[in-house]
Amino acid sequence: MVNGSPRLGIIGAGQLAQMSLAPATALGIDLRILATSATDSAAQFFPVTIGDFRDFEVLQHFADQCDVITFEHELVPNGHIRRLEELGKAVRPSSKALLHAQDKLHMRTSFSDAGLPQPAWKSILNASEIENFPVILKAVSGGYDGRGVRLVSGISEAQAVLADWGRALCEEVIPFDRELAIMVARSPHNQISTWAPTETVQRDGICIETISPAPDLDERTALLAQQIALAIAEHIQLIGVMAVELFDVGGELFINEIALRPHNSGHWTIEGSVTSQFEQHIRAVLDLPLGSTALNAKWAVMGNVLGGEKSDLYRPYLHLFARDPELKIHNYGKEVRPGRKIGHVSAIGENLDALRARVAHAVDYISGKISE
Amino acid sequence: MVNGSPRLGIIGAGQLAQMSLAPATALGIDLRILATSATDSAAQFFPVTIGDFRDFEVLQHFADQCDVITFEHELVPNGHIRRLEELGKAVRPSSKALLHAQDKLHMRTSFSDAGLPQPAWKSILNASEIENFPVILKAVSGGYDGRGVRLVSGISEAQAVLADWGRALCEEVIPFDRELAIMVARSPHNQISTWAPTETVQRDGICIETISPAPDLDERTALLAQQIALAIAEHIQLIGVMAVELFDVGGELFINEIALRPHNSGHWTIEGSVTSQFEQHIRAVLDLPLGSTALNAKWAVMGNVLGGEKSDLYRPYLHLFARDPELKIHNYGKEVRPGRKIGHVSAIGENLDALRARVAHAVDYISGKISE
Repeated sequence: MVNGSPRLGIIGAGQLAQMSLAPATALGIDLRILATSATDSAAQFFPVTIGDFRDFEVLQHFADQCDVITFEHELVPNGHIRRLEELGKAVRPSSKALLHAQDKLHMRTSFSDAGLPQPAWKSILNASEIENFPVILKAVSGGYDGRGVRLVSGISEAQAVLADWGRALCEEVIPFDRELAIMVARSPHNQISTWAPTETVQRDGICIETISPAPDLDERTALLAQQIALAIAEHIQLIGVMAVELFDVGGELFINEIALRPHNSGHWTIEGSVTSQFEQHIRAVLDLPLGSTALNAKWAVMGNVLGGEKSDLYRPYLHLFARDPELKIHNYGKEVRPGRKIGHVSAIGENLDALRARVAHAVDYISGKISE
Repeated sequence: MVNGSPRLGIIGAGQLAQMSLAPATALGIDLRILATSATDSAAQFFPVTIGDFRDFEVLQHFADQCDVITFEHELVPNGHIRRLEELGKAVRPSSKALLHAQDKLHMRTSFSDAGLPQPAWKSILNASEIENFPVILKAVSGGYDGRGVRLVSGISEAQAVLADWGRALCEEVIPFDRELAIMVARSPHNQISTWAPTETVQRDGICIETISPAPDLDERTALLAQQIALAIAEHIQLIGVMAVELFDVGGELFINEIALRPHNSGHWTIEGSVTSQFEQHIRAVLDLPLGSTALNAKWAVMGNVLGGEKSDLYRPYLHLFARDPELKIHNYGKEVRPGRKIGHVSAIGENLDALRARVAHAVDYISGKISE
């Protein structure tokens, strides 16, 4: 039925697709999802199509059943996406925009051309091209959650990394005070909207906590973060939502990474904002007017649950919900592996210290670090 | 995967099951739904089982794949539910509790025995048993949205109704100032929780608008509504959520109807409360600790979209979302038929008059009454 809705196809069925189900269901969107396996997060809650997104025929067949195609990851080969576009498919974001998230060298080059603030960088093939240590070496593609990124302090270490990767992006080490992230959405009508900037807290290269809005962020820096996000969105002709990860050095901001999809640093918007990043992405790619990004509370804190010893993610609800009736838990239905993001916890309210303590407790309890 | 979750079965796949998908998906509940048809609201967004809930073998087969069974309507024959219980299935709410919503005569008898406040009532077979007109005649079972309820002003009219129904519940006409509804949840652990009482506005026996909390409700009456809801929940040993519809006569309250499931008068809780009625129902029937029912804003207004001339429910988003970026629209994916509930609109905020006007505008625009 879903009267009048265009057919929206999402390629990828992880937790980002899973969290897109709620707004798509509320709005009665005619959704289709291409999953890799029946155990994918979204596949457990939605009648997905199963197929390999690296196989162009699978992609084309899926696209033929959709009016608009979007993505929940950056892994679809850019050439495949270009071919879909050549066939007249509405692919949002476009292959050109997506390439910025798929190829870090392309992103750095493109952003330098646009005069966007970045760490000093160059593309290298040999460790001898590195002038001063330490540096950050990044794989040109395929990295996430700290994979594909190395802090390298000497030539032999650099040689080992380059032996693995062949080419690397070599970036200066930015002595940041903290990391920020800002989510932005843009529609084909060129309506653009951002949420409040978020502070992200990393451990071992993986985000473990976000605080929104970023605490003690002066108005000038908040505005600068928004300006950078808007400039990138315009520059790459973004359609959909995008996360921009930034280094904050005393109010000066440098672009670290971008993701052209809903992103971990925007999970807080589910409870913390009138319009979640997942609803906004759907609105943007369908060219619906964007929703309000106003905050639902003074603070929103999100904590990632990383896989630990425990494999039962349900049983902790008994203790945690009794302890904290306002807590929101999101369970990605994933097989538990150490260090894997298997869920997240959110809380919104007035008292930031209390929110952080409640979320940290819940995360540690679920992953089995503490037992009460 | 959905690690550790019990298997929860919902019988019925209408909009109440559809709106249960969001919290079930977030919490990673191992959900199963028994739908009547592939065009049912929830069936468009979830891999349902299709079967006839009036067929005991279908029910039993479905129940065998679940740890806990619940309902999104009152139409499953009570005898079937008793048989499932006899087979040792966990059915929540129980057949005994559900009978109060399935058989209005049983409800009135049971509530009178419990000393709960009700209109004067009696069971009649003949119009001659009616002493004074007007009266309300109610079918003992099967009524909803004004069907099965008649305001009858004379003997010949009463005779005609009784010729149709055989038996009727005959109730005094309560000269109410307004109608209220209150949602309550109770778990097997006997944890009980209510939300703020809601004012419901009806037209032709169908709820068209709810305002939460009910405006100008003095503390004594609000407390009375809660006490009645809690007393019913205890009396019938409710498991799950229940709606209690009340007549407000100058602060005196009389029980009109009950529903042992999420209910239209509680749709506001999706945006308006920390825990929605849909999440709370899942928590209650799974015996998880109940969530906070605190309000997310001063006021929550909900308007029902009734089927009109237009069959495209998607296109109105273009105008409405541009006009009102804070509006929330829920589309049940139903075939449009005049007067049928096909969706609802919600808004929360500080200014009640403005919220009511925004919701009323959206409802009229979607159903085609107004064109801008």
